[in-house]
Amino acid sequence: MKNSFGNNVILTLFGESHGPAVGAVIDGLSPGIPVDESFIAFQLDLRRPLDGLGTARRERDRFSIVSGVYRGLTTGAPLCVMIPNEDARSGDYAGLEDLPRPGHADYAARCRYGGFRDPRGGGRFSGRLTAPIVAAGAVVIPALRAKGILIGTHILRCGGMADRPFAEDPAADIDALSRRPFAVLDEAAGEAMGRRIRQAAEKGDSVGGVLETAVVGLPAGVGEPWFDTVEGSLSHALFSIPAVKGVQFGAAFDMADAPGSSFNDPFHVENGRVVTATNHNGGVNGGLTNGMPVVFRCMVKPTPSIRLPQRTVDLGRMEDATLELSGRHDPCILPRARVVADSVTALVLCDLLTGRYGADYLGGAGQ
Amino acid sequence: MKNSFGNNVILTLFGESHGPAVGAVIDGLSPGIPVDESFIAFQLDLRRPLDGLGTARRERDRFSIVSGVYRGLTTGAPLCVMIPNEDARSGDYAGLEDLPRPGHADYAARCRYGGFRDPRGGGRFSGRLTAPIVAAGAVVIPALRAKGILIGTHILRCGGMADRPFAEDPAADIDALSRRPFAVLDEAAGEAMGRRIRQAAEKGDSVGGVLETAVVGLPAGVGEPWFDTVEGSLSHALFSIPAVKGVQFGAAFDMADAPGSSFNDPFHVENGRVVTATNHNGGVNGGLTNGMPVVFRCMVKPTPSIRLPQRTVDLGRMEDATLELSGRHDPCILPRARVVADSVTALVLCDLLTGRYGADYLGGAGQ
Amino acid sequence: MKNSFGNNVILTLFGESHGPAVGAVIDGLSPGIPVDESFIAFQLDLRRPLDGLGTARRERDRFSIVSGVYRGLTTGAPLCVMIPNEDARSGDYAGLEDLPRPGHADYAARCRYGGFRDPRGGGRFSGRLTAPIVAAGAVVIPALRAKGILIGTHILRCGGMADRPFAEDPAADIDALSRRPFAVLDEAAGEAMGRRIRQAAEKGDSVGGVLETAVVGLPAGVGEPWFDTVEGSLSHALFSIPAVKGVQFGAAFDMADAPGSSFNDPFHVENGRVVTATNHNGGVNGGLTNGMPVVFRCMVKPTPSIRLPQRTVDLGRMEDATLELSGRHDPCILPRARVVADSVTALVLCDLLTGRYGADYLGGAGQ
Amino acid sequence: MKNSFGNNVILTLFGESHGPAVGAVIDGLSPGIPVDESFIAFQLDLRRPLDGLGTARRERDRFSIVSGVYRGLTTGAPLCVMIPNEDARSGDYAGLEDLPRPGHADYAARCRYGGFRDPRGGGRFSGRLTAPIVAAGAVVIPALRAKGILIGTHILRCGGMADRPFAEDPAADIDALSRRPFAVLDEAAGEAMGRRIRQAAEKGDSVGGVLETAVVGLPAGVGEPWFDTVEGSLSHALFSIPAVKGVQFGAAFDMADAPGSSFNDPFHVENGRVVTATNHNGGVNGGLTNGMPVVFRCMVKPTPSIRLPQRTVDLGRMEDATLELSGRHDPCILPRARVVADSVTALVLCDLLTGRYGADYLGGAGQ
Repeated sequence: MKNSFGNNVILTLFGESHGPAVGAVIDGLSPGIPVDESFIAFQLDLRRPLDGLGTARRERDRFSIVSGVYRGLTTGAPLCVMIPNEDARSGDYAGLEDLPRPGHADYAARCRYGGFRDPRGGGRFSGRLTAPIVAAGAVVIPALRAKGILIGTHILRCGGMADRPFAEDPAADIDALSRRPFAVLDEAAGEAMGRRIRQAAEKGDSVGGVLETAVVGLPAGVGEPWFDTVEGSLSHALFSIPAVKGVQFGAAFDMADAPGSSFNDPFHVENGRVVTATNHNGGVNGGLTNGMPVVFRCMVKPTPSIRLPQRTVDLGRMEDATLELSGRHDPCILPRARVVADSVTALVLCDLLTGRYGADYLGGAGQ
Repeated sequence: MKNSFGNNVILTLFGESHGPAVGAVIDGLSPGIPVDESFIAFQLDLRRPLDGLGTARRERDRFSIVSGVYRGLTTGAPLCVMIPNEDARSGDYAGLEDLPRPGHADYAARCRYGGFRDPRGGGRFSGRLTAPIVAAGAVVIPALRAKGILIGTHILRCGGMADRPFAEDPAADIDALSRRPFAVLDEAAGEAMGRRIRQAAEKGDSVGGVLETAVVGLPAGVGEPWFDTVEGSLSHALFSIPAVKGVQFGAAFDMADAPGSSFNDPFHVENGRVVTATNHNGGVNGGLTNGMPVVFRCMVKPTPSIRLPQRTVDLGRMEDATLELSGRHDPCILPRARVVADSVTALVLCDLLTGRYGADYLGGAGQ
Repeated sequence: MKNSFGNNVILTLFGESHGPAVGAVIDGLSPGIPVDESFIAFQLDLRRPLDGLGTARRERDRFSIVSGVYRGLTTGAPLCVMIPNEDARSGDYAGLEDLPRPGHADYAARCRYGGFRDPRGGGRFSGRLTAPIVAAGAVVIPALRAKGILIGTHILRCGGMADRPFAEDPAADIDALSRRPFAVLDEAAGEAMGRRIRQAAEKGDSVGGVLETAVVGLPAGVGEPWFDTVEGSLSHALFSIPAVKGVQFGAAFDMADAPGSSFNDPFHVENGRVVTATNHNGGVNGGLTNGMPVVFRCMVKPTPSIRLPQRTVDLGRMEDATLELSGRHDPCILPRARVVADSVTALVLCDLLTGRYGADYLGGAGQ
Repeated sequence: MKNSFGNNVILTLFGESHGPAVGAVIDGLSPGIPVDESFIAFQLDLRRPLDGLGTARRERDRFSIVSGVYRGLTTGAPLCVMIPNEDARSGDYAGLEDLPRPGHADYAARCRYGGFRDPRGGGRFSGRLTAPIVAAGAVVIPALRAKGILIGTHILRCGGMADRPFAEDPAADIDALSRRPFAVLDEAAGEAMGRRIRQAAEKGDSVGGVLETAVVGLPAGVGEPWFDTVEGSLSHALFSIPAVKGVQFGAAFDMADAPGSSFNDPFHVENGRVVTATNHNGGVNGGLTNGMPVVFRCMVKPTPSIRLPQRTVDLGRMEDATLELSGRHDPCILPRARVVADSVTALVLCDLLTGRYGADYLGGAGQ
């Protein structure tokens, strides 16, 4: 599938950082999903850099829906959303084609595409490509919400500072996050993170961290045991979020040394429903949802584009060289990545739910 | 795809723990790959429980190749390998259908499949299904080796004990591991792990840990930027290994708080080849291989089937209950899972390489 | 996908004509479908050669279900069915490896697989591979019937002799065909066809013809406009039936010169239901079912394996040569192919219906 | 996959007849393919209606390439091409939502999408969607030509008039067709067809016919035996061309009653190459190319949108009704469909060739 994911709801991504536009096609949407353009704009806003915490590139993200929507509702045909690139400064990249940036895709991409790729602004590998993912996610997030399925992501760790983890029932936390531009549960932790990001920016350096995502309201019994597990399907797509280098479900890392007797989540009956007393498995057993919140973490490396001088090679001369980047870069991707994580999660879940419950599941089939 | 993975080399898995056999079909193999049945047997041996460290179930794993091989070479047609189940004791599971095991798939599977699933021995969710994965992997591992691509996995952490990580150039470590039934680099660490596993077994409990896998010899420029990244493609399949709850590439966790200036891997020229001085990115940039070793870790939770009494629910009566398991279970899955990780990795890489270089890449097209 | 088809219900085929067995894996079946082994045997019987009308190879087709069924019902896990090859005589093919049979896959296969393919009995290209397709079809045909969806195929034309076409409402015809070993609606036409087949066999020659298939009871609105149309999805799989060289829906050929005013099927209301007065479109408009019977025809070329001397080349010496085949061959594939057409049709429809209505659609989810 | 086709080169189609634009994304293109915008414009011109022979709707088809091309060459990233809709007159369709056009998708689409589809101008089901298919085809046709692979389509039959079939070696015919706006080999036949089309148009009626396509220069051994055969892969996509109701390869229909001894194509050696004396199999044996020209025919029904009064139903009142269409319609789709057939064929072949020979096959990897 290459630049797509999904079996029943399929996202295909196109565009480059400095081309005329970036965009996405979502195929397999149920007909009758209300499309709220102001919510798409709101979500794209969450992805935009915060003052002092992100790149100086300022895109207005004036998206347009090219297909698949009629009278404000999805039709069931592929929905194409386009976002023009308006503030591209390709000159910033002049002279760097032969100097691959450490930690970046430049060198690997040259091995993959020969001399043919578009290098401007990172081309195909730019974080700019996450904008249409967010727009696509904003089409389906309200449809999931209408089914009682809520998704939220916060910055659990950033530059050495820690937020508190999600509460056992994350519904209230998700609700609070949906209104916060800087996604933390503990606002004091967020301020400390902001200071670390600004310090890194001043030095021309960058910081990474950890995102934590929670989903509540999923029915039990969604997913496949081999190989389209909930974990495998989500991670397949999540690893495309630039800088994500690890994905873990539940408490795997915190409890690496715990015995099975502590890690297993005992079942009990609560108000006539089967629930677990703890959620160390992150809501997934045997690749299937078990009805508890699905909780996972994405490890995000520090953004590779930094202004500090770095050692690299000159690929033309095949000799060692030093790289000093100018250009506009994010010292930390986490504040912007949280809405990307929400969006990817929403799209993967729509795919799994549509496969399980049929092509009309998310829409207004009753009309 | 559900019970399959891959675009060009595709594995499809079938069978249940206590059915007549488990098996796999591999489609898309290049014609002309030598199939070494003694190596398949050797790899299946690595998956079998070690004395005192695993389940008492003893399967001889007498596999047979049903199709796709002629005169000892792959033909290019689907290769089906079958492994009969010979030591199933379904009686051990009698009376447990209504008592889902905590941490196990039982409850989620009932929500997915209604009352129709085969519950004997975990049915479709049993680790027994990894046997045909190992047999399939053993078909392609030598073909990768013939291309200079080597794969190895060791137990980095188990029950609180740590092995040393892979050396910067893991080739020698991979070679050593290929001959060790208990996969550690530091044999003293292995003995300590063995003691912890036996202690857990005596208590009727279980332990988990971390596997570390390394791949050397991959060409640079394999993978896709969105969404069939190397990380996403590998993790999609790795999360199907029972008990794997996290996958991370490179040094993401060890260096969570490091700045970009430390995390980025500087390039330099060495013997006319572009290499990096460090490998914090685990051999993958922008979703593509960069020619350095691909290194990743799988977090493995403690096996959920334990003999200690556990709280659960009686799904027939919808009331709380206590579960006391007898049956034969692994107190720790790590010693057996290492060869499964190698096999899954090999199959995913064959898929990516075949897509990149064509249908004859791994075989003997020159004949 | 190569040796598989389907998005939600996926058939994967394996085996060779003279290997130990042929088989299929069906993934994505709803849980709770009753599996009737005597019906599988009955359908496999329909595929066996009739006395004097087919090959002398006599396979008992003693299938076994390896996975995916528990207590007589599908579990929702992949169902693997295996059929051993018991009457293979590979000696019949000795000395023919360098002499490709005209009209057969031999030469093309050598170009595709080099010298590595299994040539015995046609190997992977043998009609023997249709046996597991029939077994797989026999699992789902009763599940469709339980939904009111009936499928039948007859020999519309064979060796120059014509059967009458399906009645406007083909339900009674389908019912009659289900009990006839030689699938014609007009038994006198069938006797004439039988004579032609025997005449061809006596001369060492072969004959072809046309199969006509009808499906009643499909809901309207199944399929996709681009590109998983009902026509495209069916034809994709139908062209794999050996010797099928054309697929047409409705009256395309009979009415090639008719104007739109005759070809369009006018709608009217009948008993509160929308129906069409004619069915020239074969039950499909814009790639979607319209609720009328789906009717299509497969053009079947004369079987290429004939005993008459034929011109070919010696690929070893690269010079012209003459081929005289002995061995056991079918002078006409149509009598055996009708149940293969039914089976392929059933599997494709299950795939489309499961994608449309969800993973439990065909099973017993209510249990 | 729904609105996409291909495994390695994948086309995804979006847009509606009266939406802002129609477009396509092609993923999996080799890097380094020269993109000739004037050839794209030339091919789009071939698809535009000829005076008096097609709809009065006049689209300028001012396409733009949104992504995947840099400095005139493909980059290997998804190529998105967009074509605005400029001459849509949605008023023509007012009042017709409840009156499904006979032979058209209207009724089936309502059953599939409920009341949510975009009905204007046929919406998703309009022939307008073939414009981006032609643009996408125009990207890859020159890349195939650079490999010696030539594709051409002519109108074999139209409104009862017949063109001569392709010559045994169709290369010269293909070359001649590439310059003819009305695609016939015998220009007198073309004039007769034109008269029939105009007669039908005057009566408010329409005519159909048969397209014949030939491909020369394909290597032998491309395709899969089950189920991604050359025939199955091509037909899957060809059936999406609006009004195509049948696809046949080689001489299946002309020789329906011929014995195997006439139909089989004898091999012989010619200039050191294996060729066949005849090509009744249309260049495909066992699902694989055999090195001879691939030749197939598409049966095209008369266009369903006609001005003559037709019987239909009023879906609001559920009673019989009469439909009188105004609007702008094609009395015959064949003159415009020939370039669509070429384009679909080119895209399917790129997919098969890229799967066989790797991701760089069609591009300029040597640069």
